[in-house]
Amino acid sequence: MRIELPRTRERFGANVFFGPLQVYELDSGLLAEPEYENGAIVGLSYERLHEIQRQMAVVVPVRGERLRLIEGVLFGIPNQCLTIIVSNSPREPVDRFRIEQQAIYAFARHSRKRVLLIHQRDPVVAKAFVEAGYPELLDGDGLVRHGKAEGMLVATILAHLAGKRYVGFVDADNYSPGAAHEYLCEYAAGFALAESQYSMVRILWQSKPKIVDGHMYFARWGRTSRFTNYFLNQLISHYTGFETDIVGTGNAGEHALTLDLALRLDYGAGYAVEPHHIVSLLERFGGERESPDPQVMREGVEIFQIESRNPHFHKAGEHGHVQDMTRAALSSIHGSYLCTEDLRRQIEEELVRHTTMEPGDAVKPVRRYPPLLDVDFDVFRATVEERLQVMPFQPAQPIHEEAPARRRRWWGGTQPARDHPSGETEESPSPR
Amino acid sequence: MRIELPRTRERFGANVFFGPLQVYELDSGLLAEPEYENGAIVGLSYERLHEIQRQMAVVVPVRGERLRLIEGVLFGIPNQCLTIIVSNSPREPVDRFRIEQQAIYAFARHSRKRVLLIHQRDPVVAKAFVEAGYPELLDGDGLVRHGKAEGMLVATILAHLAGKRYVGFVDADNYSPGAAHEYLCEYAAGFALAESQYSMVRILWQSKPKIVDGHMYFARWGRTSRFTNYFLNQLISHYTGFETDIVGTGNAGEHALTLDLALRLDYGAGYAVEPHHIVSLLERFGGERESPDPQVMREGVEIFQIESRNPHFHKAGEHGHVQDMTRAALSSIHGSYLCTEDLRRQIEEELVRHTTMEPGDAVKPVRRYPPLLDVDFDVFRATVEERLQVMPFQPAQPIHEEAPARRRRWWGGTQPARDHPSGETEESPSPR
Repeated sequence: MRIELPRTRERFGANVFFGPLQVYELDSGLLAEPEYENGAIVGLSYERLHEIQRQMAVVVPVRGERLRLIEGVLFGIPNQCLTIIVSNSPREPVDRFRIEQQAIYAFARHSRKRVLLIHQRDPVVAKAFVEAGYPELLDGDGLVRHGKAEGMLVATILAHLAGKRYVGFVDADNYSPGAAHEYLCEYAAGFALAESQYSMVRILWQSKPKIVDGHMYFARWGRTSRFTNYFLNQLISHYTGFETDIVGTGNAGEHALTLDLALRLDYGAGYAVEPHHIVSLLERFGGERESPDPQVMREGVEIFQIESRNPHFHKAGEHGHVQDMTRAALSSIHGSYLCTEDLRRQIEEELVRHTTMEPGDAVKPVRRYPPLLDVDFDVFRATVEERLQVMPFQPAQPIHEEAPARRRRWWGGTQPARDHPSGETEESPSPR
Repeated sequence: MRIELPRTRERFGANVFFGPLQVYELDSGLLAEPEYENGAIVGLSYERLHEIQRQMAVVVPVRGERLRLIEGVLFGIPNQCLTIIVSNSPREPVDRFRIEQQAIYAFARHSRKRVLLIHQRDPVVAKAFVEAGYPELLDGDGLVRHGKAEGMLVATILAHLAGKRYVGFVDADNYSPGAAHEYLCEYAAGFALAESQYSMVRILWQSKPKIVDGHMYFARWGRTSRFTNYFLNQLISHYTGFETDIVGTGNAGEHALTLDLALRLDYGAGYAVEPHHIVSLLERFGGERESPDPQVMREGVEIFQIESRNPHFHKAGEHGHVQDMTRAALSSIHGSYLCTEDLRRQIEEELVRHTTMEPGDAVKPVRRYPPLLDVDFDVFRATVEERLQVMPFQPAQPIHEEAPARRRRWWGGTQPARDHPSGETEESPSPR
């Protein structure tokens, strides 16, 4: 992968948001060919991406998507990644999950992929959350709540239990396997550039084709994203005093995090999950209030936004879905203690104009889930293990240790550092 | 890449057509992870594909396509390939070729790609053909004729002069860079499976999305392909005595050949080029008449058809374009000495039904170009060299030598053979 080095950045406390990075080449060959760096663009070898992907769990949230599309996404996931599929597909009147199981396990057998498949509403998963001390995720039925964020939280714990260092998300409603593959290369490229162990990569789609008057139109911005990005940028601008448009990925379903960061964020429910990432980063590591993680404040958080080249060619959302997305995203910003009165008023106006909210209605706060760091992972593993047949579980990495000094700027030096010696992550014993 | 091994095949003289192969995984990791083979599916490591792609020239024929699309295709071409762009874009009233040059060279600089860009109607190219003893390609203006095949022939010679062993074609009117990348991995996978130095890989699109009633419809077969495949299969069936549907890629714009084979085929003009590949294979190596290449008859020719996973998401052709394609393809089959009277009559009926041909009109024969093997490559190189600034030219490989024994069946053995020792191709001196 050949990728631009960050040119612009915006600091908010310990958070550094980098401006969108362009990519110039999907496959830049082997390490044997000298890695080239001209001060602006760096070539990352296949081995470097592979080393990071080997430590990455790729999460595919599924809810009734066509099997053909799911298979396409699996095709695009590199073999070195662990795939985690959290399905919330209906089990009645037809047991769609069972059909998914059959198809996905067959595909995994053919492709020799390690795939871990679990149902979001499996009672065993709910039991594991209760016993591990994290009952917030359950609903009145005693099962994990419906919703995208909720499935992602299940997957994040599984990724951590599998000893992975990174977790990346790829939506299943993607017609283009090549796009899924590109995102996973870009996640790895972002982490290759990262200096901090607390980092995040968010994909900015170069275009999103839609049908307008019977013709293809390559839209640049989604309907929800315009609002989300605007308000997140306004929020940042208010505190820095310089107006910015740095955030272009407020609703990035395609994103990846280091587990070290993923376990330390709090989460917004349902569709609020992606914009709430930013809200959570600003609140927890923005320096406006005391941070719950002084270690993160010292180390810093890096947020990379990478502009993908494949058009994001997916099933268009219904109008109602777009409204739900918009409401969730803006409510998350509205509910932050950082949000100013003026911004709150603007958000309320937008919600009245673009959703079913009536003037005078109160903005319904987004449900928040606390950081996963406090989950008792050993108990969770012991409970859920019976459901995880495909992949033998390896001990988790030591997340509570003092983080090693990982600052580096290899692309400015002469020798690229090999940051993750092979096997280190998977073999280190868990301290819990 | 994880790919099915051939299950079905159809022999026609020295030609072996393999039935369509499924692919299960785009990136199957490094050689360090043991290559797995279960008798039906084989995993090909990144290094293996890389080694083949290093010896591959990727040809992108261009005729006024949007620069954004061309850049997307370049993004998807692995760095280890040599890229050859043959443009036939108009130079008046706006010099589109000059704009392409600027954009493509800038992109190549950013991505450190070796890109060779030439205009099909450049008088220097025409001069090279005349002096090298191949005037057939020129028109009344003394320039290389317009047409897709004609540009491909220019590129094939350049690929040979650059010392490449393989030449692969990727159309520029592709919205999905990931699809271009997939094709190039599949070309390499096909050649990794090949036993013969005379082999060809043709891509079978799993789907070709189009807009029907304002919605996406994933068509399986193109409008022209249905006819082309039907008649090619009928032709084969007639001689073998067993009806077959083995050919599914009669119009495969996405295809690759070993240079050893590419130089020994004759070519159909314009849009006939892809179906005429098959006609030429059947005529020259089918055993019905004496072959001009006894060496090829001994070694055999292998034709792989690989089913791509990315939808082929491109600008839909106009109705007239589809008619031209159909006419060219069917005329090529009609003009073969192998074509039976009965098939000729059926083809005429189809042409009347689906193109502008009137009943009683004679089918216009497709123009044919002789094999490139007789071109004086040294003379061609000396003439055209001044136009090729991007890539220093390396001597061509020894194509007139007795071909080495390359039979192997590594996937049936215990140890995969490393077939192309590194550097062999590029460094071997030219005998001419």
